[in-house]
Amino acid sequence: MLTRSFNPPVRTLMGPGPSDVHPRILEALSRPTIGHLDPAFITMMDELKELLQYAFQTRNIMTMPVSAPGSAGMESCFVNLVEPGDKVIVCQNGVFGGRMKENVERSGGFAVMVEDTWGEAINIDKLEDALKDNPDTKIVAMVHAETSTGAQSDVSSLVKLARAHGCLTIVDAVTSLGGTPLKVDEWEIDAIYSGSQKCLSCTPGLSPVSFSERALEKVRNRQTKVQSWFMDLNLVMGYWGTGAKRAYHHTAPINALYALHEALVILQEEGLENAWARHQKNHLALRAGLEAMGLTFIVKEDDRLPQLNAVTIPAGVDDVAVRNRLLNEYNLEIGAGLGALAGKVWRIGLMGHASRAENILLCIGALESVLGDLGADINRGVALPAMQRALAE
Amino acid sequence: MLTRSFNPPVRTLMGPGPSDVHPRILEALSRPTIGHLDPAFITMMDELKELLQYAFQTRNIMTMPVSAPGSAGMESCFVNLVEPGDKVIVCQNGVFGGRMKENVERSGGFAVMVEDTWGEAINIDKLEDALKDNPDTKIVAMVHAETSTGAQSDVSSLVKLARAHGCLTIVDAVTSLGGTPLKVDEWEIDAIYSGSQKCLSCTPGLSPVSFSERALEKVRNRQTKVQSWFMDLNLVMGYWGTGAKRAYHHTAPINALYALHEALVILQEEGLENAWARHQKNHLALRAGLEAMGLTFIVKEDDRLPQLNAVTIPAGVDDVAVRNRLLNEYNLEIGAGLGALAGKVWRIGLMGHASRAENILLCIGALESVLGDLGADINRGVALPAMQRALAE
Repeated sequence: MLTRSFNPPVRTLMGPGPSDVHPRILEALSRPTIGHLDPAFITMMDELKELLQYAFQTRNIMTMPVSAPGSAGMESCFVNLVEPGDKVIVCQNGVFGGRMKENVERSGGFAVMVEDTWGEAINIDKLEDALKDNPDTKIVAMVHAETSTGAQSDVSSLVKLARAHGCLTIVDAVTSLGGTPLKVDEWEIDAIYSGSQKCLSCTPGLSPVSFSERALEKVRNRQTKVQSWFMDLNLVMGYWGTGAKRAYHHTAPINALYALHEALVILQEEGLENAWARHQKNHLALRAGLEAMGLTFIVKEDDRLPQLNAVTIPAGVDDVAVRNRLLNEYNLEIGAGLGALAGKVWRIGLMGHASRAENILLCIGALESVLGDLGADINRGVALPAMQRALAE
Repeated sequence: MLTRSFNPPVRTLMGPGPSDVHPRILEALSRPTIGHLDPAFITMMDELKELLQYAFQTRNIMTMPVSAPGSAGMESCFVNLVEPGDKVIVCQNGVFGGRMKENVERSGGFAVMVEDTWGEAINIDKLEDALKDNPDTKIVAMVHAETSTGAQSDVSSLVKLARAHGCLTIVDAVTSLGGTPLKVDEWEIDAIYSGSQKCLSCTPGLSPVSFSERALEKVRNRQTKVQSWFMDLNLVMGYWGTGAKRAYHHTAPINALYALHEALVILQEEGLENAWARHQKNHLALRAGLEAMGLTFIVKEDDRLPQLNAVTIPAGVDDVAVRNRLLNEYNLEIGAGLGALAGKVWRIGLMGHASRAENILLCIGALESVLGDLGADINRGVALPAMQRALAE
């Protein structure tokens, strides 16, 4: 029996990503494929680099998308910058810090973990203590926006401290890029990676990265080859770099890059500051609705990410049953808890194109209906007015 | 000044890949994005695995696309199977054997190179000698279809020999999958990787792979962790494997997978054997035209790949000028030479959806016009009739 074409259901994506993809981006994906060495494609690549520099707020020449998902962007930073024997401090306050540790160790480095409670921002005093205790540290790694908890950390101050101790920094900006203030040059970040499928509203599969001149200097002067051929920046630079001639490295994911280009054109049209403000405004509206209903955030107010709202699942409520009903009855996807928070929280994303009034309305209304129907102890009839008041402010 | 949306030119892609993408596949790319843990998506993944098993002619459970281009598929095979200190024989008869050597060494292995002239098939006697000289060899790696030269090797016999010496095998099938006979189970291949953008006519960015039970046994029993977190099969298996519960590993490139699914549905509709026969028939028609014009193939007849035709650039003809005119006047892309063959050959692809009578007609006609116009010493007015006779046979 022949397998038929796959026609996906139409969902509203308000989980931790992928987020709703803008129709212009889906259309861009389906434009005619051209060769990866076509002059027209090279022009597009140059534009894409400039657009990414804008999104990251950097002039770093090595700013480009890795041809694979965010996990590969993370690995690209670690395998290039960590040399065997290097000591790396990893600030962990959620799932992705743990993944960083794996990356340090698999790159031959030694990880010193600085642990914070999940749901809290990274504590700068703990980092300072660790730096004093480990003066031979080469690199400090941290997550700007923890997708697993919805907490954001003060990367600007943390990087400043790390630099004062002579360390390079690696920053995970998977969920922050395009959704919340991030300034690579002003904050003097050395290596940063993100994902296409969060606040850029693009399809998943690409990982924008950027490397400072200090970082590239370390890569160029490595004593050993980068262990990954695919991710070796010395090779990737020949294709994405600014040299007159592009050297073939791997076949770029042409159509995916069209989509990212379009996503960044949309971001540029809106303006980065406007996008940040929109995420914040819509977060406040969602928060007003959720709190009026009686739900509580796990992250304290100052540290909350506007684009990822982690709320405690009310006592006695069946996590999976609620998410299944939202999906089946309203085609609405919200996120489950991850790692230590599995079964304890929902993660509601308001990322990029998903950060819209109509999505908040749908989410609040559907949650109230389903929770009410399941007999959960929530306040009814007050969430929508609260949300609308917040939107009108 | 704002960057505008990118609208690519419409090309006919007859280089070494990406090849012409079927319109159904472009349309599939732009279907609505859903979550990577959505039940509907999981169903699609299961279908995709079965479709890939059909394309590879295997029952291997670990048959799936790596979420990155073919180079990452290659690296996935090497980093998982090569343990530090392992001796690996690499049969090299083109560019991609050299890349395999890099992968062996970066994985901590020791590469023994068995070199053949570029453009020739791998010589089995040389491999036998190398196996006798190196009885401690753990793995033999080879390229089925050398994209840099257009030569195909007798993988069935080479793998049989390697197995007789107790070795696992890694096979590069980037350009062969879907275009020329390939039977993973019958030939007892242990690890194989391909690309989406060649004879499957899909967009670039994914690398179908398949691993035998023997290969997985080696991965499970490694003494050291796989150096790549992103490519670690022990982790990837948790997401793509057959367990009841899918463990989140990385965010799958949702829309790219829709496209690959559609490409494989199209292949299944045509039938694998019919696709192989079509590639062969169209190759013979292209060959008839090119040879009538006076162009010569670099690979001897028995070893030629039907989907990649490497021909010598006529004496005195400017390689770049010809390719630029084909691109600018006819929107036709053919491939340049790679590595040692740069400037010496053209690589004309007839891959997947590009393997069609109308493409051959365009290629022969455009080449004859441009070469004639540049005063090249070719036979004129005979290529098209020769091609048409071959098609009618």
